[in-house]
Amino acid sequence: MNNSGLRIIPFGGLGEIGKNMMVIEGQNDLVMIDCGLQFPDADLKGVDMLVPDVRYVIESSKNVSILITHGHEDHIGALRYLEPLLDCKIYAPKFAALLLTRENKFKNPIKIVEERISYKISEEFHATWFSMSHSIPDSMGIVLDTSLGKIVHTGDFKLDFEDKNYQITDKSFLEDLKDQNVALLMSDSTYAEIPGVTPSEDILDEPLTNIIKNAPGRCIFSTFSSLIRRIQRIIEISERYQKKVCFVGSSMHKYTDIAFANGYLKAATGTVVNAKYLSTLDPADVVIIMTGSQGEPRSALVRLSVNELDGIKLDSRDTVVLSSGVIPGNERKVSGVINKLVGNCAEVIYQPLNTVHVHGHAAADELRWVIDTVQPKYFVPVHGEHKHLIQHSKLANKSGLGEDRAIIMRDGDVGVLDSLGFKLTDKLDLTDIWVKGRRLYDACEVLQKERLSVSNSGICLINLMVNRKDVLTSECSEFGVVPNRNKKDFISDVQAAISDNQKKLLDLTDDLAVNKGRIDELIRNIIYKMYHVYPKIICNVTFS
Amino acid sequence: MNNSGLRIIPFGGLGEIGKNMMVIEGQNDLVMIDCGLQFPDADLKGVDMLVPDVRYVIESSKNVSILITHGHEDHIGALRYLEPLLDCKIYAPKFAALLLTRENKFKNPIKIVEERISYKISEEFHATWFSMSHSIPDSMGIVLDTSLGKIVHTGDFKLDFEDKNYQITDKSFLEDLKDQNVALLMSDSTYAEIPGVTPSEDILDEPLTNIIKNAPGRCIFSTFSSLIRRIQRIIEISERYQKKVCFVGSSMHKYTDIAFANGYLKAATGTVVNAKYLSTLDPADVVIIMTGSQGEPRSALVRLSVNELDGIKLDSRDTVVLSSGVIPGNERKVSGVINKLVGNCAEVIYQPLNTVHVHGHAAADELRWVIDTVQPKYFVPVHGEHKHLIQHSKLANKSGLGEDRAIIMRDGDVGVLDSLGFKLTDKLDLTDIWVKGRRLYDACEVLQKERLSVSNSGICLINLMVNRKDVLTSECSEFGVVPNRNKKDFISDVQAAISDNQKKLLDLTDDLAVNKGRIDELIRNIIYKMYHVYPKIICNVTFS
Repeated sequence: MNNSGLRIIPFGGLGEIGKNMMVIEGQNDLVMIDCGLQFPDADLKGVDMLVPDVRYVIESSKNVSILITHGHEDHIGALRYLEPLLDCKIYAPKFAALLLTRENKFKNPIKIVEERISYKISEEFHATWFSMSHSIPDSMGIVLDTSLGKIVHTGDFKLDFEDKNYQITDKSFLEDLKDQNVALLMSDSTYAEIPGVTPSEDILDEPLTNIIKNAPGRCIFSTFSSLIRRIQRIIEISERYQKKVCFVGSSMHKYTDIAFANGYLKAATGTVVNAKYLSTLDPADVVIIMTGSQGEPRSALVRLSVNELDGIKLDSRDTVVLSSGVIPGNERKVSGVINKLVGNCAEVIYQPLNTVHVHGHAAADELRWVIDTVQPKYFVPVHGEHKHLIQHSKLANKSGLGEDRAIIMRDGDVGVLDSLGFKLTDKLDLTDIWVKGRRLYDACEVLQKERLSVSNSGICLINLMVNRKDVLTSECSEFGVVPNRNKKDFISDVQAAISDNQKKLLDLTDDLAVNKGRIDELIRNIIYKMYHVYPKIICNVTFS
Repeated sequence: MNNSGLRIIPFGGLGEIGKNMMVIEGQNDLVMIDCGLQFPDADLKGVDMLVPDVRYVIESSKNVSILITHGHEDHIGALRYLEPLLDCKIYAPKFAALLLTRENKFKNPIKIVEERISYKISEEFHATWFSMSHSIPDSMGIVLDTSLGKIVHTGDFKLDFEDKNYQITDKSFLEDLKDQNVALLMSDSTYAEIPGVTPSEDILDEPLTNIIKNAPGRCIFSTFSSLIRRIQRIIEISERYQKKVCFVGSSMHKYTDIAFANGYLKAATGTVVNAKYLSTLDPADVVIIMTGSQGEPRSALVRLSVNELDGIKLDSRDTVVLSSGVIPGNERKVSGVINKLVGNCAEVIYQPLNTVHVHGHAAADELRWVIDTVQPKYFVPVHGEHKHLIQHSKLANKSGLGEDRAIIMRDGDVGVLDSLGFKLTDKLDLTDIWVKGRRLYDACEVLQKERLSVSNSGICLINLMVNRKDVLTSECSEFGVVPNRNKKDFISDVQAAISDNQKKLLDLTDDLAVNKGRIDELIRNIIYKMYHVYPKIICNVTFS
């Protein structure tokens, strides 16, 4: 390690979507920006979520500060698992801090930060948060003041200078950075592939107004619980048309409770009603906002779609609006819930049928604007799959930062920023950390393969019993091998085939240490011949 | 059954994407339009594909004719499994017939049909095929002449009247139908949610030309093997710039071999080269067209991306083009292959970075045009999830067909068309049919649940052995329960815990018939307490 330099190490979110975490490491002090979780791919079974591998940080024995950009789960969600392992100070914008402390008791202190104030984080680092427009309140970027100059991290953002009603990106703060010799800019790459500019939330005012105004019965919105700005707008439009608003779904209650209690949401007295009073109201006076926009199996919208939502039955006059984008990987689930809704209510409105959602990340022209405005010496695209990072670095190339200055990093890469410049020097050996329940496991490829293999063809358990007179009998059971109606036949067919191969099997049992594998293989082939499946075989041999 | 009517019964493709099959049943004759397969959802493990449940057709004992609209697998792919079960005549456009007969020996005759010729299919039905633009050669719609008037089935299509070079939709044929009292129109709903008009293939000429002309090294296209029109255009542009074309991937060879042998593809002598000669050519003179546009695990593009493709190594001068759309459900796989390609070649070009694909289905304005032009008495949207069918029926409503004339059907619904009109009367009890290898199974929910459960938490096998002195010992093995490094500990922990619970377990073994479930439950809880997982428990008790 270069003693005069800073080490820049992404622990998550570079080369993947989710579990965002970036480390800036000085001589004695270490800063961690965000600490998020990630949801597993469909083929990763039995894992609730993934979190960054923070062993390096723990083992560094440095003075650790955690700086949070905003309260989305992919930025704060790993803290509830990892914070107990760390001695640190946590700094977070207010909404993120409220979310963090609502459900967790942290052993470390959490300090709420405000924008445009310079905080002395540690001997080596000062930090200033600045406002960025994004799909949750109090989204911020961070400027880290270091001995080597400023390091700017955008967090997640879009520019949205036009949104007249809510938190917008702090344009003048970004513009002022131009003359401050920014050493390194790290900027959100999620939508780097999308040309142009992400529309402002403002463009939804008209379509949402028309939907709420004209709904023949109840108007049921599904959106992200943390998208408080959208929820506020739906409340305002509902009030304009003398409609009541009702929240449904535990996550929706969690976020809106916090938002109302702390002034992020406002409604006139009487606007918000409890679901149990809905039946007393004229359906045309009711707007419901619920969870389930991603087709999550037990969410309110999914339960509504199959008529299993307590107290709310789908009605032929209902208008259902999916005011949300589809997170990659959820496409089939979202289609599934729409397919169950359509035909059972007056109308289901979703993209691209109508414009009922804009997303929260900057598209290519906005990303260019940030690079051109901040004019950093070095640039590292963050938050995105490898293709997004590459695309973002190409945008930086167009802004005049050559390949020596626009640098692609992946999780675990170690970059060193010193007086000579910025260079990748090393790579940490990071492991995926799986969360199941509240326990953490190192990712295990063997376990994943076992689960996938057994999910494809099931498992067959055989007890071979050899008695003293050299007679072989067998017990057999299976799980997940053949359909229900074939299960009995399967057992007796396997037992009969084992009986037919008695002599061969008895010979093999003479020296189990050598032949056990051949017994499994023989039984495997017997089963394949009859049923054309290759289940996992677990075979015990007992002698009596 | 109404003796004077026709029964209209969808067996697949209505309320789902894939396994398209529509039956029109007369007094003694039965017509089946298409017989396609469907690929399983991610959560359906150990199933290769799904095919329609044709038992009703077999049991009808009627005179069966199968009419094919085009050669895509979701329209012909089930025939290789179901044709042996049927006595029938098969009618297919030439390209579909070539695909069918290349790999299968059918017991029933296949007749190649030409457009605009009326074929006497049976006593009760005549059929006329007509050209429709789509993403495979010889795509056709079908007009069935019946005693109750014409039934028109569009097959899959877009209009694309502008494509100057290839098969376009037979506009005048459709226009002539206006005065022929079409009783029933069935039309493709796949893109009913998309507003406007699907662009013509023609719009790709310019971007494809620029890519091929300017590629600094090899130009590697990945597209659908059946998209012959696109492949022909890539060949033509390559020839214009004196480049050689090479095909890679077994499916690509299958389709292009058939296409060259039958005049669907044309190239100058010497243009097409075998992959083994690639190393002798200047990379800038090489265009490769390969499989893998959906990120299929063993496809050429995926193997190329991980450097496992025989004879072709990815090179920093290569340009890779994904000239294809993403079939819903494949999003993560396609992103995965792009992420592996970017950074290892000069450029990866894909949507939305550049326009390198147009799809093959008609959007809303085209669908309206067909309804307005054909002016059917009744309309049934086909080919799509429920939401697509609903959306298509709304388009029909806008064209003046009220809800009594634009009728939503789902797989298994029985519609009767007679002199009084068209009404849904009944619903067949259809089952999903699973294909594994070449065997067919009725779908089994129990099996699917077993496989999913065991894939989430694994399976634990316990042998409890009770000897004559009431001493209990245990053997334990597990599969898919804990990570590799915990497996040994797991076994000894479970055995120790069983030993600790010896007395309780011995009591339960007194009456296994009653207590077996409680033994499993006890062991399940022991394991959960230690490892926070609930594996499937299979426990045997033996006495010696």
